[in-house]
Amino acid sequence: MTSTAAEPLFLRACRREPVERTPIWMMRPAGRYLPSYRAVRSKHSFLEMCGTPALSCEVTLQPIDQFGFDAAILFSDILVTLPPMGLEIAFPEKGPVIAQPVRDRAAIDRLVVPDPVAELPHVMEAVRQIRAGLAGRVPLIGFAGAPFTLLTYAVEGGGSKDYVQTKKLLFGDAAAAHALLEKMADTVAAYLAAQVEAGAQTVQIFDSWAGILSPRDFEEYALRWARHVIAKLRAHPAVAAARVPIIYFVNGCAPYLDSYATSGADVLGVDWRIDLSTVRARVGDGVALQGNLDPGALYLPPDQLRARVEAVLDQGGPLGHVFNLGHGVTPETNPEHVRVMVESVKARSWSASR
Amino acid sequence: MTSTAAEPLFLRACRREPVERTPIWMMRPAGRYLPSYRAVRSKHSFLEMCGTPALSCEVTLQPIDQFGFDAAILFSDILVTLPPMGLEIAFPEKGPVIAQPVRDRAAIDRLVVPDPVAELPHVMEAVRQIRAGLAGRVPLIGFAGAPFTLLTYAVEGGGSKDYVQTKKLLFGDAAAAHALLEKMADTVAAYLAAQVEAGAQTVQIFDSWAGILSPRDFEEYALRWARHVIAKLRAHPAVAAARVPIIYFVNGCAPYLDSYATSGADVLGVDWRIDLSTVRARVGDGVALQGNLDPGALYLPPDQLRARVEAVLDQGGPLGHVFNLGHGVTPETNPEHVRVMVESVKARSWSASR
Repeated sequence: MTSTAAEPLFLRACRREPVERTPIWMMRPAGRYLPSYRAVRSKHSFLEMCGTPALSCEVTLQPIDQFGFDAAILFSDILVTLPPMGLEIAFPEKGPVIAQPVRDRAAIDRLVVPDPVAELPHVMEAVRQIRAGLAGRVPLIGFAGAPFTLLTYAVEGGGSKDYVQTKKLLFGDAAAAHALLEKMADTVAAYLAAQVEAGAQTVQIFDSWAGILSPRDFEEYALRWARHVIAKLRAHPAVAAARVPIIYFVNGCAPYLDSYATSGADVLGVDWRIDLSTVRARVGDGVALQGNLDPGALYLPPDQLRARVEAVLDQGGPLGHVFNLGHGVTPETNPEHVRVMVESVKARSWSASR
Repeated sequence: MTSTAAEPLFLRACRREPVERTPIWMMRPAGRYLPSYRAVRSKHSFLEMCGTPALSCEVTLQPIDQFGFDAAILFSDILVTLPPMGLEIAFPEKGPVIAQPVRDRAAIDRLVVPDPVAELPHVMEAVRQIRAGLAGRVPLIGFAGAPFTLLTYAVEGGGSKDYVQTKKLLFGDAAAAHALLEKMADTVAAYLAAQVEAGAQTVQIFDSWAGILSPRDFEEYALRWARHVIAKLRAHPAVAAARVPIIYFVNGCAPYLDSYATSGADVLGVDWRIDLSTVRARVGDGVALQGNLDPGALYLPPDQLRARVEAVLDQGGPLGHVFNLGHGVTPETNPEHVRVMVESVKARSWSASR
């Protein structure tokens, strides 16, 4: 037994230190599948909830209290860094809308790299309140969108089916694309460092749309700038002092495993489309993995759901695995099945195998 | 020199026989990027065009005449088999809509396996007219949606972002899902065999949405039923007699390469997210590959576009490669860049390397 029992299970798994069992959290635990979340949401807009520390804190703590996840994640949105850069966003039911997307060099040059502490003080206050509310029970994860994923929203003006505007910018004016990515990366690095200074104990960088790229373009446009964020974070005193684990999550990572392994992150998020054992064989033992149950598996009958959880645990193994869904939980999910998933993970002990 | 010059280049590449150069066609060559297509489309609805053999023939031949592709593909839609099964579809601008999706066993049991010759005579007539119009210049490819992809449309009622209804059916009632997939597969097999009897010289099965599945679910719900279609086709006298190549295209195939290689198809379609060299190393030499330029690369300046075409040709190699985009061409593409792509492929000779 070489682990320090004083360090939280989740942080030890992120650092590939020994654990008694695999820790679990879920993307995203505060969502419409949860009745207590919907009760808050019925009284406030999504933007109000992101902008009000007490509300953000309340819904962040709900799933910890109800399911006993091994880590909490700040309730916020990957796009909150865009308005301070100069991009106004609305959040109608159908997803985010940026009325004036940036598609040329002039529009990109008008964007600023904001001071996140000055511009997003409510986020830092939410982090402090959540840490107080958690009272040491489990670690708190901060997060941000990855530079490339933020670029897709800024350029498309929202979500997209075929990302034509993104491709037109990347392939029509690569220099402008990199100028935009650099501003995104500097903003994200400062924003995540500020979250750590406010109390976040781990950070996750969400590259939700990097999976639309060919392998060479993934390296040039997504990975390069995620590395930039990670390197800047590593050099930050607060991040270095606390050995804050950095999680990088590329949704649709299967084609890029060799380069994905070189991101510099402590933990690689893995979506549900690929087996964890395949990923482990390709990325080696130098990095932890997080994932990767299909969110759709929560629609299975409990006995079949348990079997799928077991299969993910078997593939993840005892060292360097954080159990999670491979993508966000869907609104129609039965919360009782979330409970079955958490209990199944917690029932599996690795003590006997050491 | 062992190749029979009398056999078309495209068919030889599909069969992994020697070729002087790599053949090229493009998904989908008759589309809104093409002014001559838009001229026809401005006078007719999409459904009219699919349902009128003379119009289908006209737009099928346009890109052959204008760009000199090495194969033509029937102008139609992957969903045309659904109305004869009992699912009415509308095609508004935003994509197909099925007003009454099937989500339970009773609705699935009401669907029929139609006789495609009796129910879709205009498709067979279009195939005959196109063959006459081609007059032997290049082979004609027929096509259909794959069973799993057709299931997603039938269940979701159209396209989807997270395929929740699909997952609910697969994981909530697997037996019902397989009953639906079997009807889809029997319909598709009969429909493709009828296209071959009418004159199609190759067939492609489009599994556009199989990439939303975990590896085990890909095998159980997508690959299993694609194999069923391929096996039925192989056993059909007209398909066997003419050695009709069968192409299976899974969009987002990277996570499934080991099982993808066992589909039974002559040619595996490869999307742009993964390198052809990676795919070849994993699937071996027993199957041809088709792909895989990023459709977005057509937005590159011509000299950079040429370099990307060269890179795909290098990875594809001289034996068993059909050049194609990794997915459909986008409407804003400049037709002159399509011409650059075709000329770049045709300029590369493999004669010296043999």
